[in-house]
Amino acid sequence: MRVILTSVVAATLVLPVLASEPAPTGFFESSIAAQLAAERVMLDTPTPQKTRRWLAHLTEEAHVAGTPQEKVVAEYVRDRLVEFGLETEIVRYDVFLNHPKEVSLKLIAPVEEELSLMEDVLDVDKDSAAHGVFPAFHGYGASGDASGQVVYVNYGTPADFKKLEELDISVEGRIALVRYGSVFRGVKVREAENAGAVVEIIYSDPEDDGYMQGDVYPDGPMRHPSAIQRGSVQFLSVQPGDPSTPGYPSRDGATRLSRSQMKTVPQIPSLPISYREAEKILRELGGERVPDEWQGGLPFSYHVGPGGAAVEMSVSMDEGLKPIFNVFGYVRGSSEPERTVILGNHRDAWTHGAVDPNSGTAAWLETARAVAAAVESGWRPARTIVFASWDAEEYGLVGSVEWGEDRAADLSANALAYLNLDSAVTGPRFGVGGTPSLRDVIRESIARVPEPQEGGTVGEHWEKRQRGEWAESTQVVLDQPDAEFELHLGQLGSGSDYTVFLDHLGIPSMNFGFGGKYGVYHSIYDNFRWMEKFGDPGFIYHVAAARFYGTLAMRLAAADIAPLRYESYGPALREELDVLRRDVVRKRRSAEEIDQDSVLNSDFAAVLGALDTLANAGERFDQAVDAALERGDTAAASAINTAVLPIERALLTTDGLPARPWFRNVIYAPGLTTGYAPWPFPELRQAVEDDDAALFARGSERVTAALLEMARRLDTASAAAGSGN
Amino acid sequence: MRVILTSVVAATLVLPVLASEPAPTGFFESSIAAQLAAERVMLDTPTPQKTRRWLAHLTEEAHVAGTPQEKVVAEYVRDRLVEFGLETEIVRYDVFLNHPKEVSLKLIAPVEEELSLMEDVLDVDKDSAAHGVFPAFHGYGASGDASGQVVYVNYGTPADFKKLEELDISVEGRIALVRYGSVFRGVKVREAENAGAVVEIIYSDPEDDGYMQGDVYPDGPMRHPSAIQRGSVQFLSVQPGDPSTPGYPSRDGATRLSRSQMKTVPQIPSLPISYREAEKILRELGGERVPDEWQGGLPFSYHVGPGGAAVEMSVSMDEGLKPIFNVFGYVRGSSEPERTVILGNHRDAWTHGAVDPNSGTAAWLETARAVAAAVESGWRPARTIVFASWDAEEYGLVGSVEWGEDRAADLSANALAYLNLDSAVTGPRFGVGGTPSLRDVIRESIARVPEPQEGGTVGEHWEKRQRGEWAESTQVVLDQPDAEFELHLGQLGSGSDYTVFLDHLGIPSMNFGFGGKYGVYHSIYDNFRWMEKFGDPGFIYHVAAARFYGTLAMRLAAADIAPLRYESYGPALREELDVLRRDVVRKRRSAEEIDQDSVLNSDFAAVLGALDTLANAGERFDQAVDAALERGDTAAASAINTAVLPIERALLTTDGLPARPWFRNVIYAPGLTTGYAPWPFPELRQAVEDDDAALFARGSERVTAALLEMARRLDTASAAAGSGN
Repeated sequence: MRVILTSVVAATLVLPVLASEPAPTGFFESSIAAQLAAERVMLDTPTPQKTRRWLAHLTEEAHVAGTPQEKVVAEYVRDRLVEFGLETEIVRYDVFLNHPKEVSLKLIAPVEEELSLMEDVLDVDKDSAAHGVFPAFHGYGASGDASGQVVYVNYGTPADFKKLEELDISVEGRIALVRYGSVFRGVKVREAENAGAVVEIIYSDPEDDGYMQGDVYPDGPMRHPSAIQRGSVQFLSVQPGDPSTPGYPSRDGATRLSRSQMKTVPQIPSLPISYREAEKILRELGGERVPDEWQGGLPFSYHVGPGGAAVEMSVSMDEGLKPIFNVFGYVRGSSEPERTVILGNHRDAWTHGAVDPNSGTAAWLETARAVAAAVESGWRPARTIVFASWDAEEYGLVGSVEWGEDRAADLSANALAYLNLDSAVTGPRFGVGGTPSLRDVIRESIARVPEPQEGGTVGEHWEKRQRGEWAESTQVVLDQPDAEFELHLGQLGSGSDYTVFLDHLGIPSMNFGFGGKYGVYHSIYDNFRWMEKFGDPGFIYHVAAARFYGTLAMRLAAADIAPLRYESYGPALREELDVLRRDVVRKRRSAEEIDQDSVLNSDFAAVLGALDTLANAGERFDQAVDAALERGDTAAASAINTAVLPIERALLTTDGLPARPWFRNVIYAPGLTTGYAPWPFPELRQAVEDDDAALFARGSERVTAALLEMARRLDTASAAAGSGN
Repeated sequence: MRVILTSVVAATLVLPVLASEPAPTGFFESSIAAQLAAERVMLDTPTPQKTRRWLAHLTEEAHVAGTPQEKVVAEYVRDRLVEFGLETEIVRYDVFLNHPKEVSLKLIAPVEEELSLMEDVLDVDKDSAAHGVFPAFHGYGASGDASGQVVYVNYGTPADFKKLEELDISVEGRIALVRYGSVFRGVKVREAENAGAVVEIIYSDPEDDGYMQGDVYPDGPMRHPSAIQRGSVQFLSVQPGDPSTPGYPSRDGATRLSRSQMKTVPQIPSLPISYREAEKILRELGGERVPDEWQGGLPFSYHVGPGGAAVEMSVSMDEGLKPIFNVFGYVRGSSEPERTVILGNHRDAWTHGAVDPNSGTAAWLETARAVAAAVESGWRPARTIVFASWDAEEYGLVGSVEWGEDRAADLSANALAYLNLDSAVTGPRFGVGGTPSLRDVIRESIARVPEPQEGGTVGEHWEKRQRGEWAESTQVVLDQPDAEFELHLGQLGSGSDYTVFLDHLGIPSMNFGFGGKYGVYHSIYDNFRWMEKFGDPGFIYHVAAARFYGTLAMRLAAADIAPLRYESYGPALREELDVLRRDVVRKRRSAEEIDQDSVLNSDFAAVLGALDTLANAGERFDQAVDAALERGDTAAASAINTAVLPIERALLTTDGLPARPWFRNVIYAPGLTTGYAPWPFPELRQAVEDDDAALFARGSERVTAALLEMARRLDTASAAAGSGN
């Protein structure tokens, strides 16, 4: 126990009394007052003191998945849910994980020097002296020993390795040194492996999250020179989850792949290092000056190598099946108890995890407490609210993926929405991504949350910023009426637990958080002191997160008609498709000549037509729902609530995306070569990247069919709304 | 004498024998063969050895305007022209200049330390040990002593000072520390002065031209940590030229302003420093972390100050009237001797000036030698070619401006085109800016020049690169035919000697050079060794520059009908206007509300209409010229050659631009707040920046009138072409 509570409730935290709350979507006139009253109880419940306390407890020790410490935290979370009055459950899986046994990295030329694989202990920060924190290692990184010349390959993206080839420099038999950023680290290691490197070292360049972005820890929020970004190097965009049970749950007795059989983990060893250590290698590199965009923020001109520097690395992993624990709390629904609204947050961390993920866990616990208070006051949702605390997310979304695979049939049939919260707070800037069907309910929910520093609501500030970014980035076409701003949610890529729900199961999903300057990601300095000094000193954004999360859950769970809306679905996808279409035009412009069978001759007409059909169907559906609400038609409501569930499942294909069949959503997927960042219309994007007209044709057919099927299901639902059947 | 000639003629320097040269624009069928033969003599003349020799001689010593060394270089240039067989002339003016007597800069807090105001002597570079190079100072910088707290203001642009105000930090009574880049340094000092700073220090940040851009001198072409960027701090975008005779020539007996009466020079002292010295101040600065975009390339998080660092500065200038020398060489025209094509390059340098400007001087001398060879072979131009070697460009385009003001009437009546060459070579990348009427003749001329390393012609590579940049940067508008690439020349801003000709006198102008990595600008390392090691080791781009320059001059001077073409003039200006129009739409998008009298309600219709009229008139003119050429109509040719001269003078207004009446061109001017970078349609741009609808209305009227007058003159010329009168 080291928590000293201080009074940090600011005046701005008191909720404004709104003269007239706007009516929430999906509720009959007759239900609104009770819902708003229950929401008020929920909104008034979260406090900075409580979130601060949860965070302090959760982050007392480092709690990597598969370690005893993480089981302690699982039980702490379960106990809190029990305390709040929720029904709870712990679901254990035994999954393939690795922990470092011994790691070492040594500069062997031009001089010998052991490189540090642990952060500095800082006097002002007791957690930086904590025992039990793992040194530098990568989740799912391979064991091995190697030494050799070093070659610097920028971010280690496919484009960077291609550029290296153009420079006529090879990493074959050498050590690839790359910096963090641009793409998921697993993509970097896969590329290095494919290029023949014997080892990859990934360091944090100060340009990306060190001193060039702000004052460094402990004086500021950015990366200390000794800070190491741990993390998973699974090939996440190919397939997440336990690599020993690809595509099926890690139940007792499940068939297991051996490590060498696993297709989604690297075969070459890799290590993350700090920029202070990386500098010792980079400064010595010979060879050519790097291409300009490869220069980072260390104070000298970067060279590609090889020559000048050589290193020796040794990595020994303790790997095998280890237990993980997903913790659940339930608020049972009254009229549709089998249908679920799932609020998921992961709990495991690479170190203490005060931001990632336990700022989310603290806000998620406070959300559970607040919703429980509403239940205590007499409120009861129609659908069941599931609070899910995932384990082993950091290794590859393992806890959520195994559970999603385990419960696939039930989730497919009954999950209305999956609401994800990973890191809740690194600063004051609200951000949210999600499927377009959730836009309106998200918008209404965030508009209920006071902005704790600026006044007004978080929703207002968010929408204003979105509009500003739109004004800046949307092209101006002269001599026609200017485009109108329409609010869209960000696209979801991958990198957190919504992946199995959206990309594998087709469930409407969202992910949110409050952002700011954050340079201690996955380092030992991602701890309570950092949050208290820089991230959210008053814990006021933790409270805002809980308020939004709770409101959204209560509306989705309690609405008389599920508040998914489809009018903006077609237009939102159209904007994403247009990005791809413009890229094709640019490629046409730059092409010397265009082969007859080039993808650049491909035609978007079918997909565009299907998007129009979808847009019309979405509009009809929303109108039908509005009419049913207006009529107070309970029979129609019930019919719609049944008919709405399969709508977005229409976007799934049984055989999945090319080379990664686990990803079954033809609209939403992470980029195969980005790992995190989304690739809307993944098959079409891949066809354009690879200049593969046949793939484009197949993708166009599949996307068109999926969109038309989704439109058909919308029409079915509209008909049900009209007839009440 | 330190020149050791080595054989550097590469095989690729041999001109390819073209099966059929494309016919040059402006020549009768009957004249083409002789012209091409003469051009061949010219093209075969320049050699790497000669340009190398000229450069070695020109850069033997630093030669700042107003010093005895610069007179020596003037005479060297004159003697070469004589040697080539040209008629020569030296025109002297006495103009206001300053040289540093004593400069010092001292850190006085947190510790005392004298800061260096001179570059390091490098063993490998004997010029770095040269005597007679001035230490850090600014041309037209003020004398004075001051001390105080330091505030960092990024690039010191108007926007940066505005941001500083928003941060509630003042430079009043303090010392502004800014970095080079973004805008002309005179703008920086003017802004600091207006904000109440007592001193401005300008340093070269390694992000901008130091190690972050490449290897630093002496190992690479970029800025050494000790390198200082000297330069003028005149308020160039308000008015260039001798500040003691604003708007009129510095002839003997001219009325002179005293320094305190001069409106275009700073009143506060300023100094340039290196990044090694700047680091000693910046590291100590307290106060807030800078706005993100203010961070530079030094290895720590920048702070704004004040607090932490204080400095003391003392500057004492030797200032007053000093002699400058413009050197001229003439190739007299046969049929229209009073009409001129002027090839201008400046000669004065802040140090040795191997790039700036004497790579240009070497290429310019070689051009003169090559054209003289053509004359020697029997070729004779219709119009007079004037080779002009300007002095005191570095202080504020002084030599060219005084001469332009001196000969304004003659130039207005008789100058067909002004062709500028400042720094000729820093690398292999050809770039050119100019008025649209010169596009076609430039395009034809550069297509005659072999690319010395890549093969093909410089023109091919240039056009391909232009097309690539267009493909990348031009927006894609879906669902309509894609835009077609049309080659346009870059816009001319200011910062070199074309300014008086284009912006003050309305003479078609162009400026060109071969670019590459260049970080030693205005430092002691801009010397012969730099050029030989990095800029143009084989002097092959110097030769390419001479070939292009010579071809262009010979075509403009000898064409039967002056090869100015106007079809693309309207469309080129339309592209520039559209940039401004799109900015207005973006401002409208971002505006909270738009006042009735806001400039955002202003209307571009009149200017757009005038551009259409201009485009049509240009098309008719080009057709009329083509027809006259086709007919071999000498009477029409003569009439056109007379009628073409006043066409672009139509863009001048007698009262000039707002707050800077010397700038009389309503289309072409440097940005008032950029100094170098162009602001096409300056009055409209200024109206938009200042939200001044009245200025917009006045500007729109003046621009419309000017464009319509230009169209009228084109029609007059077309009529002359038709009738032969």
